[in-house]
Amino acid sequence: MYTFSAKVERWGVQEVVMPGKAEGNPFTDVEVKGEFVGKEERKTVYGFYDGDGNYVIRFMPSFTGKYGFRIESSAFEEPYTGTFDVIAPSEGNHGPVRVKNTYHFAYEDGTPYYPNGTTCYVWELQSDELQETTLKTLSEGYFNKMRFCVFPKHYDYNQHEPWSYPYEGTPMDSSVLTPENFMLYNGDKGGNDFDFTRFNVRHFRHVEESILKLQELGIEADLILFHPYDRWGFSLMSHEQDILYLNYVTARFAAYRNVWWSFANEWDLMPQKSVEDWEDFAKTVMERDPYDHLRNIHNCTKMYDQTRPWITHVCCQRIDLYKTTELTEEYRQAYKKPIVWDEIAYEGNIQHGWGNIGPQELMRRFWEACVHGGYAGHGETYLSDDRVLWWSHGGVLKGESQDRIRFLQKIMNETPGCGLKKAFLSWDDSVAVPEEEQHESFKDYSYYLFYYGFFRPSFRDFYYFDDDAEFEAEIIDTWNMTVEKIPGVLKGKFHLDLPGREYMAVRLRRVN
Amino acid sequence: MYTFSAKVERWGVQEVVMPGKAEGNPFTDVEVKGEFVGKEERKTVYGFYDGDGNYVIRFMPSFTGKYGFRIESSAFEEPYTGTFDVIAPSEGNHGPVRVKNTYHFAYEDGTPYYPNGTTCYVWELQSDELQETTLKTLSEGYFNKMRFCVFPKHYDYNQHEPWSYPYEGTPMDSSVLTPENFMLYNGDKGGNDFDFTRFNVRHFRHVEESILKLQELGIEADLILFHPYDRWGFSLMSHEQDILYLNYVTARFAAYRNVWWSFANEWDLMPQKSVEDWEDFAKTVMERDPYDHLRNIHNCTKMYDQTRPWITHVCCQRIDLYKTTELTEEYRQAYKKPIVWDEIAYEGNIQHGWGNIGPQELMRRFWEACVHGGYAGHGETYLSDDRVLWWSHGGVLKGESQDRIRFLQKIMNETPGCGLKKAFLSWDDSVAVPEEEQHESFKDYSYYLFYYGFFRPSFRDFYYFDDDAEFEAEIIDTWNMTVEKIPGVLKGKFHLDLPGREYMAVRLRRVN
Repeated sequence: MYTFSAKVERWGVQEVVMPGKAEGNPFTDVEVKGEFVGKEERKTVYGFYDGDGNYVIRFMPSFTGKYGFRIESSAFEEPYTGTFDVIAPSEGNHGPVRVKNTYHFAYEDGTPYYPNGTTCYVWELQSDELQETTLKTLSEGYFNKMRFCVFPKHYDYNQHEPWSYPYEGTPMDSSVLTPENFMLYNGDKGGNDFDFTRFNVRHFRHVEESILKLQELGIEADLILFHPYDRWGFSLMSHEQDILYLNYVTARFAAYRNVWWSFANEWDLMPQKSVEDWEDFAKTVMERDPYDHLRNIHNCTKMYDQTRPWITHVCCQRIDLYKTTELTEEYRQAYKKPIVWDEIAYEGNIQHGWGNIGPQELMRRFWEACVHGGYAGHGETYLSDDRVLWWSHGGVLKGESQDRIRFLQKIMNETPGCGLKKAFLSWDDSVAVPEEEQHESFKDYSYYLFYYGFFRPSFRDFYYFDDDAEFEAEIIDTWNMTVEKIPGVLKGKFHLDLPGREYMAVRLRRVN
Repeated sequence: MYTFSAKVERWGVQEVVMPGKAEGNPFTDVEVKGEFVGKEERKTVYGFYDGDGNYVIRFMPSFTGKYGFRIESSAFEEPYTGTFDVIAPSEGNHGPVRVKNTYHFAYEDGTPYYPNGTTCYVWELQSDELQETTLKTLSEGYFNKMRFCVFPKHYDYNQHEPWSYPYEGTPMDSSVLTPENFMLYNGDKGGNDFDFTRFNVRHFRHVEESILKLQELGIEADLILFHPYDRWGFSLMSHEQDILYLNYVTARFAAYRNVWWSFANEWDLMPQKSVEDWEDFAKTVMERDPYDHLRNIHNCTKMYDQTRPWITHVCCQRIDLYKTTELTEEYRQAYKKPIVWDEIAYEGNIQHGWGNIGPQELMRRFWEACVHGGYAGHGETYLSDDRVLWWSHGGVLKGESQDRIRFLQKIMNETPGCGLKKAFLSWDDSVAVPEEEQHESFKDYSYYLFYYGFFRPSFRDFYYFDDDAEFEAEIIDTWNMTVEKIPGVLKGKFHLDLPGREYMAVRLRRVN
């Protein structure tokens, strides 16, 4: 049955469902193409086969007002057409996230967006019950971005069957897998029988529902399109099969405003794909995504060339074992893009060095990222008898960093304008000032965030300003999540007593 | 009265006191030169004027047996001559420290020496009472090296008068100094009247006594010859005056076996001295020190060219704010010398970033230094009402790192051979093996020290060895200072449960 909505909100989704011929392989044999036209935009949009003889096309309007569309396909006798109204966005709908001020982000309506993401690689491919628990955890508002995969994951602690598979066919017998032998099954060592030309519609519908559930919680879906942790052969498909997959994924997901394209988790662990392959993937996604969603490609030990123009922001894993987000300023200078550190070791206690740092160290890395003008990401890997680890499966959080991340988000939201940058004033602390402000003298900013990290001053003298500038000061304990307002107004040279503990910050706001 | 000892122990000091003419300026006008001859060595040694018409020459014999000497000077009518016996060293006298195994140290008798130093810049120029307190603290055996200055120090927390001045004359009035204005008096802003050609003998005698008191405690005296923290003009002397000073210092101190020459604290903060000056200082000391004591030159933000052949070992301050002793291996490769990190921020809570890290972080840096094949140094800067800070003044220790340093010393002393090096086995932990051992396979070492730093594994599987190698294992809590022996012998692949806390280490000793 031909259906679409008469009314859609701005940055919502118009979904047109169209019956059509489904002989042969409708995933490979049929192209569905639509034109959507409003007063302020005209978009070409691709559709997809959704099973049961139905084709679907989705469109995200970026403006309010009347829209018309015309959708053609070899599967249809006649084009499908229609008109609909785009109304104002509902509360909490700020549009897709865009790069703003070179190094930062804002929603399309201008609201600053400070990413504080987490990673649950395949949370949506766990049991229904575990997915519910994950969503309940996320509803606490700790995070506003989630990195996760379209393909299932095979790795340490990831030997069980996923909720669904992306292709029609049958997987290898997972009962042979143990925590000791799983590495022997990397790639496709036989026993799998998937048809890489026939998508499992149920899998993709489920990913969509998951994207929408995150959207309801105000969480951006940083979708990982390819990754190396595989025992089914999804990482070993031909280039043609990869492109077919990208066409399908973009047709299905691009209309969701909270989607980001993360081309790879650890591209450099996939030697089977060349730089030319990745560049071609990027070209494909840019052609097929009419909304220009954010695009990134994540590394393990070797950075992709992050200067490539299709990369909207740097999504990086730390390469140095000891120095991580403190390198943000260097990366900003090198890439002139937002820097998002999405793997800086996870809070946890597993055997792997990437998954066993403490919450204090993780939070120090978050704060260092922020005061250097970038962003960090969370993950959690605490051992438990059920082998459910947030990093891959979601569930409940056992750690102590998530509350501190929410606290940091609150502080970040109070930044004037959009985004912070490091002020090159002092060597032995980090001072951030608003990105949008540019002054000849350090003393003229409206806002200063001093962060002391592992340094523990019991006082600091503030001699940076002239005798007239007046400030309100707060002492922030980033670990204990307190903000202590210093009474009165500070002027000229002033002295602040500090508790001599780690992880303290001072915020000064100019009042005169 | 002409005096010398009939019997001296090996690496002890033969001191010859000789009356002589003292007209004019005996510090500049007179040279005293001796030849000391034993069966196994012949040394030319310079003497010095010690006031009261007496000249002194000091000699450290490096062998046992009969020695003779002949000392000449324009101050003497006739040469002074004599013979004496050198007997075996007393307990605890292992001779001077030498470089061993390229990256490490041993005393001349072959006993390994693992430096765990502290810094008390001018402990010997505080009140007699405070000096006594410092020596009492040091007698606890926390440290086996002390960095300190011949010249007094002027800086934050260092505005009072020193115990003595190195030259005859009068200093500026220190009562004008405050914690706020002291920077205005850097260098020599007037009010000083010192004669840089007339040494204050009492000052140098006192430094000698201090060196000997450290020697009694088994502590090497890492003597800082020049430094920039000055209000009296000692950092601004002419090149000729500097050379006169170095001749005097070497003549007085070189015979003490525990002396090291640290040419500068923060050479790069003394732009008044050129590289040619420093090179000339090094040449002078090498000519005047017949025992070839260890030589280093310490940086602030710019390293001296540590490849210079006269530098026996790298004595460095951390240049990066975040990454310190983790760079040890890179420095080893660059300089092929022992790496001693003598400023990696001090335990404390003062306002300065170089003096307010916590004891856990300091100890982490110590351990990272060791497992990377180098060494770290201690300092302490806790605020107190009396403004007595260990870093400059000595006194009592208020921190928590010193006990852990003594614990580390005990662990280091158990190293087979002399010194550790990092094994390039694993990325996410640091594994050290004995420097002296060289094996084709990682599995063949006799000893392994795994250090996890801020990582907190709750277990590790050890798969590195073959099925036959047998090990004894210990779990070391470097913070709580416990060593837990795992019962029995471990073989093949084995699993160790760990507490999932920071600062843990595992030691494996091969038993078969």
